[in-house]
Amino acid sequence: MATITVEIDGHIIDSLLLPKVLDLIVASGADYELRDVHIGKTSTDPSHAVIDITMPDGVDSEALLIELQVHGANVIGELDASLVPAPTDGVLPEGFYATTNLPTVVRVGGDWLEVARPEMDCAIVVDADRGAQTAPMHKVRHGDPVVVGLDGVRVTSPTRRQGSSLFEFMASDVSSEKPQALLVHRVAERMRLAHAEGGSILVVCGPAVVHTGAASELAALVRAGWVDVLFAGNGFATHDIESSVLGTSLGISVDGGEPAEGGHGNHLRVINDVRRHGSIAKAVEAGFVTSGVMYECVVRGVPFVLGGSVRDDGPLPDVITDVVAAADRMRAELTGVSVALMFASTLHAIATGNLLPASVETFCVDINQAVVTKLADRGSHQVMGIVTDVGLFTRNLARELLG
Amino acid sequence: MATITVEIDGHIIDSLLLPKVLDLIVASGADYELRDVHIGKTSTDPSHAVIDITMPDGVDSEALLIELQVHGANVIGELDASLVPAPTDGVLPEGFYATTNLPTVVRVGGDWLEVARPEMDCAIVVDADRGAQTAPMHKVRHGDPVVVGLDGVRVTSPTRRQGSSLFEFMASDVSSEKPQALLVHRVAERMRLAHAEGGSILVVCGPAVVHTGAASELAALVRAGWVDVLFAGNGFATHDIESSVLGTSLGISVDGGEPAEGGHGNHLRVINDVRRHGSIAKAVEAGFVTSGVMYECVVRGVPFVLGGSVRDDGPLPDVITDVVAAADRMRAELTGVSVALMFASTLHAIATGNLLPASVETFCVDINQAVVTKLADRGSHQVMGIVTDVGLFTRNLARELLG
Amino acid sequence: MATITVEIDGHIIDSLLLPKVLDLIVASGADYELRDVHIGKTSTDPSHAVIDITMPDGVDSEALLIELQVHGANVIGELDASLVPAPTDGVLPEGFYATTNLPTVVRVGGDWLEVARPEMDCAIVVDADRGAQTAPMHKVRHGDPVVVGLDGVRVTSPTRRQGSSLFEFMASDVSSEKPQALLVHRVAERMRLAHAEGGSILVVCGPAVVHTGAASELAALVRAGWVDVLFAGNGFATHDIESSVLGTSLGISVDGGEPAEGGHGNHLRVINDVRRHGSIAKAVEAGFVTSGVMYECVVRGVPFVLGGSVRDDGPLPDVITDVVAAADRMRAELTGVSVALMFASTLHAIATGNLLPASVETFCVDINQAVVTKLADRGSHQVMGIVTDVGLFTRNLARELLG
Amino acid sequence: MATITVEIDGHIIDSLLLPKVLDLIVASGADYELRDVHIGKTSTDPSHAVIDITMPDGVDSEALLIELQVHGANVIGELDASLVPAPTDGVLPEGFYATTNLPTVVRVGGDWLEVARPEMDCAIVVDADRGAQTAPMHKVRHGDPVVVGLDGVRVTSPTRRQGSSLFEFMASDVSSEKPQALLVHRVAERMRLAHAEGGSILVVCGPAVVHTGAASELAALVRAGWVDVLFAGNGFATHDIESSVLGTSLGISVDGGEPAEGGHGNHLRVINDVRRHGSIAKAVEAGFVTSGVMYECVVRGVPFVLGGSVRDDGPLPDVITDVVAAADRMRAELTGVSVALMFASTLHAIATGNLLPASVETFCVDINQAVVTKLADRGSHQVMGIVTDVGLFTRNLARELLG
Repeated sequence: MATITVEIDGHIIDSLLLPKVLDLIVASGADYELRDVHIGKTSTDPSHAVIDITMPDGVDSEALLIELQVHGANVIGELDASLVPAPTDGVLPEGFYATTNLPTVVRVGGDWLEVARPEMDCAIVVDADRGAQTAPMHKVRHGDPVVVGLDGVRVTSPTRRQGSSLFEFMASDVSSEKPQALLVHRVAERMRLAHAEGGSILVVCGPAVVHTGAASELAALVRAGWVDVLFAGNGFATHDIESSVLGTSLGISVDGGEPAEGGHGNHLRVINDVRRHGSIAKAVEAGFVTSGVMYECVVRGVPFVLGGSVRDDGPLPDVITDVVAAADRMRAELTGVSVALMFASTLHAIATGNLLPASVETFCVDINQAVVTKLADRGSHQVMGIVTDVGLFTRNLARELLG
Repeated sequence: MATITVEIDGHIIDSLLLPKVLDLIVASGADYELRDVHIGKTSTDPSHAVIDITMPDGVDSEALLIELQVHGANVIGELDASLVPAPTDGVLPEGFYATTNLPTVVRVGGDWLEVARPEMDCAIVVDADRGAQTAPMHKVRHGDPVVVGLDGVRVTSPTRRQGSSLFEFMASDVSSEKPQALLVHRVAERMRLAHAEGGSILVVCGPAVVHTGAASELAALVRAGWVDVLFAGNGFATHDIESSVLGTSLGISVDGGEPAEGGHGNHLRVINDVRRHGSIAKAVEAGFVTSGVMYECVVRGVPFVLGGSVRDDGPLPDVITDVVAAADRMRAELTGVSVALMFASTLHAIATGNLLPASVETFCVDINQAVVTKLADRGSHQVMGIVTDVGLFTRNLARELLG
Repeated sequence: MATITVEIDGHIIDSLLLPKVLDLIVASGADYELRDVHIGKTSTDPSHAVIDITMPDGVDSEALLIELQVHGANVIGELDASLVPAPTDGVLPEGFYATTNLPTVVRVGGDWLEVARPEMDCAIVVDADRGAQTAPMHKVRHGDPVVVGLDGVRVTSPTRRQGSSLFEFMASDVSSEKPQALLVHRVAERMRLAHAEGGSILVVCGPAVVHTGAASELAALVRAGWVDVLFAGNGFATHDIESSVLGTSLGISVDGGEPAEGGHGNHLRVINDVRRHGSIAKAVEAGFVTSGVMYECVVRGVPFVLGGSVRDDGPLPDVITDVVAAADRMRAELTGVSVALMFASTLHAIATGNLLPASVETFCVDINQAVVTKLADRGSHQVMGIVTDVGLFTRNLARELLG
Repeated sequence: MATITVEIDGHIIDSLLLPKVLDLIVASGADYELRDVHIGKTSTDPSHAVIDITMPDGVDSEALLIELQVHGANVIGELDASLVPAPTDGVLPEGFYATTNLPTVVRVGGDWLEVARPEMDCAIVVDADRGAQTAPMHKVRHGDPVVVGLDGVRVTSPTRRQGSSLFEFMASDVSSEKPQALLVHRVAERMRLAHAEGGSILVVCGPAVVHTGAASELAALVRAGWVDVLFAGNGFATHDIESSVLGTSLGISVDGGEPAEGGHGNHLRVINDVRRHGSIAKAVEAGFVTSGVMYECVVRGVPFVLGGSVRDDGPLPDVITDVVAAADRMRAELTGVSVALMFASTLHAIATGNLLPASVETFCVDINQAVVTKLADRGSHQVMGIVTDVGLFTRNLARELLG
């Protein structure tokens, strides 16, 4: 029978952190006593709670405390973090601390260091020169000092953004029974605010963006500077280029007939042509690609990362076929991103969600409720799901932003 | 071991009728020999096939022949239909013929009479004065002469509409990966054509039309004459009136905030108020309801049928709480309808689909693929499913039709 | 600028009531100050909070207070309820109090009376003889004293059931990525507990129960006494009887072939036959129906309510075609129900959910996540959604309960 | 105005090939005249049709003919295939022939050579020594003789499998309203038949197989020899091992409580541990992994391919992080596969579907109808979709096969 004390700060009631923490304690088989509960009197006052947790034998206290920290509760204590060198390249020491995507600090030599680049499911490496930072498993090198256990690691619970409107907006459940016109308007507002505050906007796209006829509107958004970085896969880039090269528009052939994806093998011909040129940029330079999302990215210098997948045909020469290298490139491009839009992409949206810190506002647009739920469920507190037609959504977003 | 011969006419290859018929024969355990197959040489020539079916013992030949007729294959023979009087009110004679929704003729006294008002799952009543017509079970009166068995009943297989574009359009599978902007355009075209040819347009609505903010656009379509008859339930009418009465617009409160459905009990207050006035029309007359879809219907004299359901609160005084009476009212309003639009409605859309003849072009718009599939599966050859956000779809349809 | 004080009791933190209440206040444009917050120290201690709400001009205070009461927060005050006679049959006085499905008391002559039969979206009628009880709008008679406004009405916030296992169970989100075998086991446990405590079990069924081959297992559950009352529609009862009469088993024809629903018109023939007999019970008595769910209900005297819908063919003579009468019959059969199972039914499940008090544990099983979400969203705190195949679920539930 | 003649053989009516071909012709803007139609008189006689296609100016005849060949129609003619050397490694000559997944022959020097390893979206390379074979784009080397254009390439239309029961089975639409117990039985039959005929069985798994508690049943199937090759990703293998190592069973913790996926970071610890061992096989050898699907594969020598994806944590050392290399390994393992089961996997199922010849019977099991539809739509004629809970399906399949 052990007792451990944790504390939690911030908007712990209205952000549901305290209830979630108490739930987890009871569900684990442990029990709690609330000590020193201070509930903020007004909606702007932060709250604070100290919780004594009594764990009977058989409760996995380590597991419980880890789980609590994901929700912002830190063990009380003033110990330094334990650092253990990585036993070999790409392997972490036993008991390594697995990060959340929350802002985190780590205590080394009595000082609290901020952990650079919050990312979920990483280790924390502390370095005399570089300070503390997250490191995905494969990047750890033999001998790197890695934080082990929970001692000396604290997270900050996420706080509300300024402007109550966002909060109400984000509080909405995933639903298709919401006025989508309003949601379009709100997403546009957040994009404007992001740019006004110097943040950048990431768009993650699946091929349905092209199939539903939204590629030309998205291209217009890129041209107008509303997209600062683009993540996608071989499918999106290929169909976007195919749509441009084969004279289709709005995802339909120009004579008004059939859907874009068109003839058997067309996408292979396009991939082969771009491979011959050597890269999308060279194909643009050579005048082979003259419009579309990828074209606009090349012309405007918007960086893009095309991550490979086992289902790819070809692939295009720009596709990073090694998935670990692809994720590393995505990481490198995330600096400064404050709003992420995920359009009809499952694979790349989840991959991106894994990399994003909790502070990036993320909107996931898909017609399939199950996909949106899956994304929202993956521990990213900041994801808002919008169940709607991505073609119509993008068209209306372009109207809103481009007038 | 029996042999029966059936024949089938029309575009039996490209409309998939012949393959389906052959499939059904084999699946039943019987076998076929094709006799006198005449395949139309060109895409406008009709085809004709005579099929000898060999049925081993154990095959339910009656069941098979019924199934074949649903797909346009008629037993060869020149017998009159057997007529048996209904044994009592609301009960059909044993072995009664159950109708398809295809154009049907019945042979009486050597003459082929056209069966009035094709409707699926009815009986055929033949009357000296009124000729032959479909009758739902509950309408049959004691002694009515009802067609029994398959003798003397022939159906006409559905033919392609003029204009190849519709055919290609309808041939599209149910899918969310289609450019919705094109589909909006095509639906608008069919509505224009219907009106140009003197047909009328039926709209069937669920409450999500209001929740997704499309009520004001739909009201504008009613005002502009694009809706000739409206079917809905208590929920749609209530939320539409609530949205009007409580000063909301586009499904959101006028101060830009929260979804329309709003406060607990609001819908009850609205229902109670309309009950006090006695009807929606009287509430409009009294100035209580001054906008919205129901308002426009009242003001423009567009007939509407509100069919009750066990989940209804109130209900509104205009709701027909007896479901058999409600379906009868819906039947009465179907005359002249040539295009039906079903917007985010499951219950009333299926109810309507059951009543429509195969000749009515039907578009079913819903964000949930399972709902669309269910509707398209219910034997209505003419239903086209569009998986998209009904709010954005209606908004764009109004833009397309109203400029 | 007005200030009103509300209070809330119970497990207000871990049941998320307090956060929800604070959210609603801020979202409405008002602000709060927490006064006298007492947080239960342990997981079994109740908490208590008194909240001062400051409402600037323009905030609809009435609407906000109504919304707060849905979540268990009552205005502080010791006033009697205002009673106003109903102006005419079926119409409530203006400003009537609309009920939640929570346990409710009302103050009359200084005494707090418990409101009988909690049901959402009703009025409260207070009667010298009968005390206070909920009344759906259509049941109110001219002159009935109806509670108006919020004064003198208090609700009790829902409390946790005994046994932490249920709580953890219910806390699970709607999800298809849960081990369904475990959920089957837990549902069986709750059914056993309900019976052990003298409660009864309601099952609400859609036709997919028959189509997915689960009718014979459900019939076995009825036979073994696990179903105390059954709600369904014309479709379920018809397909169940069709499946029995036409010699099919497990939803497939006995020769191992095709799905049950079978031939065109079969269901009409079955409906017609039962109509000839006059009722399902008479058809059973006459030996026409000899197995299946409806058969077992008749033989065991399990009450059933078949509520009509506008899509019904026939319908069967037992179907209550007036939907208001059908809902009244459903209300009458709910006495004593403590567990409700909803199997692949949308319409009748929502109808039932509207009638159930918050104290009835409700499990909604459907393969379509959107349906489950819709049901869980309709304000019934007690609904747990299980996204799975209803055929396999029922089969496994029968195995679990019947051995 | 050009005229080209194509021919099509086989069960062209009941397999819907002829109707589809005629549709495509009309939809392209061309027209047809049927010449020499021979319709097989009985259900086992093959049919044959010769079709003259008239193409007005503006019709893309090349595109149309390519599309027709996907559906089994070959241009009449006795020309040799044109062979053009690949211009550089990984780039095909312009106009290269893109393969279908149908059995294909190519005419070289007057002889028809069978193309080895049918696979969709490849080129055909003809080699003096090795004969003709499919080659994915990236495998083509500078100078390889590649088939260009349609001349001298013929496909064979897919034929029905023996046993009418399969045909009826496969003809079923994707649906959740089918008796899943029957489908389990039929899938088991096809697996037995595959083994009886010397074919092997491929299983493709997503992580939901573990989450829904089916991993131990799948492990039992591997142990009993019912799985000959396994494709999956990092997620499936990790959760399977985590489930084994952390003492969970059926996807739930042994004390009956919570879902398996469990604690934050658990999967990382498992991945790190296996990385330390160097491979899954070494972790099994060292006694670190002692049960589960991956364990059984290692112990029984069942080959597995774990294809990487950008969302992977870690990954496990066995994961092939280069997606092009991963697809090549999957190709290599497909030899001899005659039945493929896809369990709750989107990414790896689509990847596998792209590689499989049309002759492999493929069953795709997922609870999400949109996923199943997407898979069935991707041109793989042989995919049957089963919308159900993968956990319950696998459990019942194991019961059926293991007794």
